[in-house]
Amino acid sequence: MESESPASCATLLRERINAISDINSATAVLQWDQEVHMPPKGAAARGAQLATLSALAHREFTGAETGRLLEECEATFDTLSEADRALTNIARYDFERARKLPEKFVHKFAEETSAAYVAWVKAREESDFAKFQPNLERLIELSREKAQYYGYTGSPYDALLEDFERGMTAEQLKVIFAELAEKQSKLVERILTSGVQPDTSWMKGEWDLQAQWDFGMCVLRDLGYDLDAGRQDKSVHPFSTIFAIDDVRITTRLNTEEFFSSLTGTIHECGHALYMQGHSREDARTMLADGASLGMHESQSRMWENVIGRSLPFWNHYTPILREYHKGKLDNVTPEQIHKAINRVQPSLIRVEADECTYNLHIIVRFEIEVGLIEGTLRVQDVPEIWNARIKSYLGLDVPNNAQGCLQDIHWSHGAFAYFPTYALGNLYAAQLFETIERDIPSLWQEVETGNFRLLLDWLRDRIHRHGRRKLAPDLLREVTGSGLSSGPFLNYLERKYGALYRV
Amino acid sequence: MESESPASCATLLRERINAISDINSATAVLQWDQEVHMPPKGAAARGAQLATLSALAHREFTGAETGRLLEECEATFDTLSEADRALTNIARYDFERARKLPEKFVHKFAEETSAAYVAWVKAREESDFAKFQPNLERLIELSREKAQYYGYTGSPYDALLEDFERGMTAEQLKVIFAELAEKQSKLVERILTSGVQPDTSWMKGEWDLQAQWDFGMCVLRDLGYDLDAGRQDKSVHPFSTIFAIDDVRITTRLNTEEFFSSLTGTIHECGHALYMQGHSREDARTMLADGASLGMHESQSRMWENVIGRSLPFWNHYTPILREYHKGKLDNVTPEQIHKAINRVQPSLIRVEADECTYNLHIIVRFEIEVGLIEGTLRVQDVPEIWNARIKSYLGLDVPNNAQGCLQDIHWSHGAFAYFPTYALGNLYAAQLFETIERDIPSLWQEVETGNFRLLLDWLRDRIHRHGRRKLAPDLLREVTGSGLSSGPFLNYLERKYGALYRV
Repeated sequence: MESESPASCATLLRERINAISDINSATAVLQWDQEVHMPPKGAAARGAQLATLSALAHREFTGAETGRLLEECEATFDTLSEADRALTNIARYDFERARKLPEKFVHKFAEETSAAYVAWVKAREESDFAKFQPNLERLIELSREKAQYYGYTGSPYDALLEDFERGMTAEQLKVIFAELAEKQSKLVERILTSGVQPDTSWMKGEWDLQAQWDFGMCVLRDLGYDLDAGRQDKSVHPFSTIFAIDDVRITTRLNTEEFFSSLTGTIHECGHALYMQGHSREDARTMLADGASLGMHESQSRMWENVIGRSLPFWNHYTPILREYHKGKLDNVTPEQIHKAINRVQPSLIRVEADECTYNLHIIVRFEIEVGLIEGTLRVQDVPEIWNARIKSYLGLDVPNNAQGCLQDIHWSHGAFAYFPTYALGNLYAAQLFETIERDIPSLWQEVETGNFRLLLDWLRDRIHRHGRRKLAPDLLREVTGSGLSSGPFLNYLERKYGALYRV
Repeated sequence: MESESPASCATLLRERINAISDINSATAVLQWDQEVHMPPKGAAARGAQLATLSALAHREFTGAETGRLLEECEATFDTLSEADRALTNIARYDFERARKLPEKFVHKFAEETSAAYVAWVKAREESDFAKFQPNLERLIELSREKAQYYGYTGSPYDALLEDFERGMTAEQLKVIFAELAEKQSKLVERILTSGVQPDTSWMKGEWDLQAQWDFGMCVLRDLGYDLDAGRQDKSVHPFSTIFAIDDVRITTRLNTEEFFSSLTGTIHECGHALYMQGHSREDARTMLADGASLGMHESQSRMWENVIGRSLPFWNHYTPILREYHKGKLDNVTPEQIHKAINRVQPSLIRVEADECTYNLHIIVRFEIEVGLIEGTLRVQDVPEIWNARIKSYLGLDVPNNAQGCLQDIHWSHGAFAYFPTYALGNLYAAQLFETIERDIPSLWQEVETGNFRLLLDWLRDRIHRHGRRKLAPDLLREVTGSGLSSGPFLNYLERKYGALYRV
């Protein structure tokens, strides 16, 4: 019954991609269960199941049949619908990229990262860089080889960056990060010498876990997260994941002693989840139903968490509501007090504990080291020394040991180089987008002050979310804001916000 | 690096089956999530994911490569390990059976069951058999066709039975069920005219859900369910499922007004779970890590639920513990009162509400009708009349409408004919095994009275659980008990237990 008309090859390509997307969704469900529910002894079998599904998806996608259908679709490209053209283009890109790494190399890389992870865990425990150094050296060597397979014109780092932030280059990042490093470290210095210290004494004590959970769920609903198409659970490390546009899950962790961490984590993951729930249904069950880049994804989580969730209008609305959840414990705490406490600036050795003013500085240290290693201008053995020097220069802190220094993050042990910059890009994209949003929605802050986030969400849905991977992040940013990536909006945002908070 | 030695083909076959088993495990995780956690809007995408995984597993398993590896293994059978021989045999059986149904027929059957399910839901809502009749007629026709594809020597019903209870025949069931019908309905009559009525007044009221949950978890641990290799959750319909021998999940439902239903459901699913956790690790990631048959699986759940969980020694141990969970509410309730109440006999129209004395009678009604339909001696249009006549004759009840009669169960709408007998077989297997157990473990009831179930579990692990699908249920039963299936042990069990309880 199959006809040989051009529509048919697009349908067949879509069906094939749908099936592969289903396998990847199953993988996501198994990973989610692993973090949220799986009993400890289930780990070994789960590892085997995940490996099987991943190999299967890779085999189905890179198989000759995909290539044949792509060729057919490309030969009749002009007759395809817009959705099918977008799918053909992205599928061709992913197909070529997936076939660039020889199977033997992928296998070797997987073996090395398994060994490196084990070595890293031990090295961090003992704060002994030497125990991780040979593994890191091999991973750098393999990553340079990977860059050769992928191909590049500028820096080999660009080839790796493409996995996470297609369209971005090491050269661009160097310029932008240099300016951020200089201006952010100066701002931090001004703040620390300002003599202003927010009062955080009221945060001490025990905060009821159920109240924290319930308040988080209340905020989730208000922000527009569709709980009929998602759910929140608890896990050791909070994360968000998508099984389908209509099934997007997030997790949080609760701690009696930490007043803000569950809430800010919930808002952060909600930002990711709103992006996922906002993809176009036309792109369901394809790789187009995904973020434009990791940096663009992070812009969504950070905009909701930091720009909105740590703003005074937000707390003008939520302080009385929060008082209801923690009966009698916050009656004398004002929105201004919460606003100051939740934006407290305090340089720390640990990236994941960093505030808005210092966060990018942690990223830049990692970026400068990564680029040096991948470009071959820095030796692995020199990493601790450079790390410590940079932390001193950007944050004014002495690193007492490598566990709290260059061994703190898991990323390199996983062979993920060029991943860190996406966190900082999230901050930059968010601020740049938000400048446009404030122009487009003059009543925005009045709306936030009444707990109405609909206008903001509608704007993001229309300008960002629905496009999924149909546009590259740099193109999308330029289209929406009228200009290319710039550090200006983020630096202005910091100056305005922290200048007022710390009177500097 | 692959050698052409005989070991190699067994390894390749095992690897192939492991991968297919992994896909099936992923399916099980997705189905579990669907029942336990999935947000409502996720249903459509989940359906697509499940269909993709199921098609993929079927394609991989029935592919020519599996056939080639089977032939190689069979050609060198004598050189294989015992585990590889068992795997080759069962894989050949499943392979042949999976290939017997033409793809077109499978597709047609799936379409018809989808339509039949929708029709059945509506027919049951309106208690209107005519709305389901044409669908049931088509499903019977297709099932007779299915039996032709499978092939059979005696009744076409045998071919369908093989999907659930390989080695059993309609003829055997007819003989055994006829005896059960006669003797069980007479026993029920004696009980109902005995004048004895257990006191259940103390069960009225509201029972704290958390206390019910906590007591259930306590019992689960005591029975030997490894909670590091499994977990309990809540769902609308309780079930058990296996993702791996070390990851076996169960669910329960809680209701403030029902005192026993969560607990007995928990023990029932625990019985299934103990079977699953007890399969041989040598058979992990293969179809051998499964029950010998559905009936044998049900024997495990029913033995723990009914024979153990509704016994007086069990309640001699647990009554004081239960009192702790429901503080002050059970101080005057004795183990004997609980024992009598939990074994109350009360004929009902609804199978899932039936007690031990009447349960098989519900099954026999369905069996007699199914056999007639499949053998072509009964017309679909006559089902309600026969149903109602049988319920009157076996249970003494008038069926007021078809919703509470022949439309109550979902099974036929799913095209599952010959499934019902496995429930009754579970009762028979359990009683027959338990006769042997009581002989082998003279101290059994003293152990139960002290809350020690280890000897019983060890016996089941050794005689039943570890064999998985390596032995057919009838062979396993004969090997363990020394005789073939008989209604005697179950009838003796009922007579002994209910004779004492109702003084008849």
